[in-house]
Amino acid sequence: MSLHQPTTPEAGAAVKAADRAHVFHSWSAQGLIDPLAVAGARGSYFWDYDGNRYLDFSSQLVNTNIGHQHPKVVAAVQEQAGRLCTIAPGFAVDVRSEAARLIAERTPGDLDKIFFTNGGAEAVENAVRMARLHTGRPKVLSAYRSYHGATAAAINLTGDPRRWPSDSGAAGVVHFWAPFLYRSPFHAEDEQQECERALQHLHDTIVFEGPRTIAAIVLETVPGTAGIMVPPPGYLAGVRELCDRYGIVFVLDEVMAGFGRTGRWFAADHFGVTPDLLTFAKGVNSGYVPLGGVAISAEIAATFDERPYPGGLTYSGHPLACASAVATINAMAEEGIVENAAHIGETVLGPGLRELAERHPSVGEVRGLGVFWAVELVRDRATREPLVPYNAAGEDNAPMAAFAAACRRAGLWPFVNMNRTHVVPPCTVTEAEAKEGLAALDEALGVADAHTV
Amino acid sequence: MSLHQPTTPEAGAAVKAADRAHVFHSWSAQGLIDPLAVAGARGSYFWDYDGNRYLDFSSQLVNTNIGHQHPKVVAAVQEQAGRLCTIAPGFAVDVRSEAARLIAERTPGDLDKIFFTNGGAEAVENAVRMARLHTGRPKVLSAYRSYHGATAAAINLTGDPRRWPSDSGAAGVVHFWAPFLYRSPFHAEDEQQECERALQHLHDTIVFEGPRTIAAIVLETVPGTAGIMVPPPGYLAGVRELCDRYGIVFVLDEVMAGFGRTGRWFAADHFGVTPDLLTFAKGVNSGYVPLGGVAISAEIAATFDERPYPGGLTYSGHPLACASAVATINAMAEEGIVENAAHIGETVLGPGLRELAERHPSVGEVRGLGVFWAVELVRDRATREPLVPYNAAGEDNAPMAAFAAACRRAGLWPFVNMNRTHVVPPCTVTEAEAKEGLAALDEALGVADAHTV
Ligand SMILES: Cc1ncc(COP(=O)(O)O)c(C=O)c1O
Ligand SMILES: Cc1ncc(COP(=O)(O)O)c(C=O)c1O
Repeated sequence: MSLHQPTTPEAGAAVKAADRAHVFHSWSAQGLIDPLAVAGARGSYFWDYDGNRYLDFSSQLVNTNIGHQHPKVVAAVQEQAGRLCTIAPGFAVDVRSEAARLIAERTPGDLDKIFFTNGGAEAVENAVRMARLHTGRPKVLSAYRSYHGATAAAINLTGDPRRWPSDSGAAGVVHFWAPFLYRSPFHAEDEQQECERALQHLHDTIVFEGPRTIAAIVLETVPGTAGIMVPPPGYLAGVRELCDRYGIVFVLDEVMAGFGRTGRWFAADHFGVTPDLLTFAKGVNSGYVPLGGVAISAEIAATFDERPYPGGLTYSGHPLACASAVATINAMAEEGIVENAAHIGETVLGPGLRELAERHPSVGEVRGLGVFWAVELVRDRATREPLVPYNAAGEDNAPMAAFAAACRRAGLWPFVNMNRTHVVPPCTVTEAEAKEGLAALDEALGVADAHTV
Repeated sequence: MSLHQPTTPEAGAAVKAADRAHVFHSWSAQGLIDPLAVAGARGSYFWDYDGNRYLDFSSQLVNTNIGHQHPKVVAAVQEQAGRLCTIAPGFAVDVRSEAARLIAERTPGDLDKIFFTNGGAEAVENAVRMARLHTGRPKVLSAYRSYHGATAAAINLTGDPRRWPSDSGAAGVVHFWAPFLYRSPFHAEDEQQECERALQHLHDTIVFEGPRTIAAIVLETVPGTAGIMVPPPGYLAGVRELCDRYGIVFVLDEVMAGFGRTGRWFAADHFGVTPDLLTFAKGVNSGYVPLGGVAISAEIAATFDERPYPGGLTYSGHPLACASAVATINAMAEEGIVENAAHIGETVLGPGLRELAERHPSVGEVRGLGVFWAVELVRDRATREPLVPYNAAGEDNAPMAAFAAACRRAGLWPFVNMNRTHVVPPCTVTEAEAKEGLAALDEALGVADAHTV
């Protein structure tokens, strides 16, 4: 196969054939997948070799916050490639210093030191290591309905079925229930009650696990893959208070929620809460070059002032990745991209999804903020029975598969997980594109409706 | 701080000040480091803002096998950046397919499916996951004197002191001793005896741990950071035989040794051994963009034909990273870069280092192949007492610190670990550069000599 083929069906078939021969894909049964060959992408769209163009309502894996091929970021990558592609983590480099400064300037509170990684899982791994060493305690608490990555520590913290096959019953990880009013673990009837009961549950879990055994509580500020459950007012402040009371490190995982997704730079900004450690990746540079990291409070950073921090990686603070972060953050600021995400959420996606919910019996709930929305599909609105069972596969999952296929037929690339579709376009999405996407969802929801009782 | 400053001492000071304010460095006591601000790099050299140029005998972290800023790789990154920076792992993409094909073409045996990661640690994490699921067994055996990365599973496999602070006494990791004649764990007198006894030791360890509890044996083909101990003839074949006998997955970690470092595409090629899984990173694209991966045998890949592989990451098979791998591998092939590494090792570095060993009493042993050499520094050649104790710090480490400083004064950037310096220039290093490096080492070894008994 030679590269840079014209965009013809034959070229697409060759790309796919080479893929099937040699590429082993994430999270997949290799013999059962049929990956779409992508020929190009720009802004909110990507296209294949057969003349199909898709509105990217998944932002790939919820990472292209700035859209595809943003010219300023592309130019920055190209320029940095010509200057200096790589340098070891031990040196000081202009773009690394500047990326760290720009991130620190935006993170809440005194989270002013940045440890760079290649992605989200490594960020979580290092946050957990820092918390354990800072406190000298072994256990970490995390939530059911969460995703934190797929390396050993990160997958054990995760609370979705992807954990099951790799779970070594990791010593020291305890899962608890976070608030989720629509499927309340606490039989609550309103947000305030859900909040109080969730805090009570967390408090009791801490007390029974032993406060002085707990290094950290790790939470997604707004859980992403697990369903975009915006926490009720007061919940995160309550967790902060519990952490302070018991000397526990509070880690907020903003790998998915950070850098504009919720209509603020960080989701924590909505709640006025400052964690001790904040993990990021994805939106920091929209994934143009692999990058993630941990923003560290002054107190935790000081733990490693004279005592070496025992963690690292060959590409920590990679120059090309840092250059793309600098360009991304500057472009987001200059072009009001975070504000656009907030505006589209308030004026188009929120109202539009609520309107769809009224008309489609398969929609049990819509929830979210910014360009970070979940549509919960149900067989029965009254009982809230999900459209497909938890972790369904094959025939059991047919209604969701049919819904996703209908989206694609309508020119929309959806993000689908369990019984939900997430509406997570780039933060740069325009009003017209958002409306186009809502129209496609409207069509596809007709298919889901046919599976309601 | 504005970017793209002229290369002046003032600009360097600004880069460093911003670094100290906001960058949290790998493996370091943040308050005690004084990172050199790097202004640029090309081929085998990099330079700072004060007019100092260094011959890079460490290839950064032993990753720039193709040297700094190779024009073909830079051009490929720039071109791909203009085409398509990022796409989710679920799609098929030309550069990902092609990178996988080029890698599979070079890996030994039937290791023809490639799972891409961002770096070495994630590659090891996924190899271990594949082995555990393929065998249904829990334990993994790895060697003392090894490094496999810093995420939870990888650091627990590691056999150097960087493991200690994070070691959770991980269930299922067992360390054994690999052959190392110069400091024989087996009181052997020659290579053949070392080989036999090392295999006996591994065999006995397997038998006493319980063969049917062991999923994998993970070894660096030639252990890198831990001291570049080229295994004696027959050792790896013997391990292969033990794995076959007991149904254990054989994982070779070639993150450091692979892609030309030893003068062959893979270090395994020297020994005629095919593992079941081979991990790579670094040299695959010289780290121009973060990339790593696992090459998977047909048998293990088939395990995940109908059963989903439960692992993944947002940037698996990242287009920009894959494009740089394609360009790197093609340039290495076109320009005979692997052959150059072999040639320089045989004709310049090997003879030159042996000659230095004869003249410098501080040199206990030199060993290696290709552009992958270790110089073992000792206080006493007769007793082989290391120049500094294992894991020395502060005053205890003064002789090695003095040696490293002398290298840098002589214009050489050394790779230093424990009581060793590693001679690991790019695979593109010229004869003249290799000789220049040897001359600098000659000077610096004078400083080490002063610390011998
Ligand atoms: C909240 C959260 N944390 C961590 C991760 C893992 O990131 P990565 O895939 O880059 O390892 C993800 C990925 O989706 C995530 O959403
Ligand atoms: C043999 C080996 N395995 C794994 C790793 C970890 O790679 P990374 O730092 O990219 O995570 C290294 C890094 O030096 C290595 O040398």
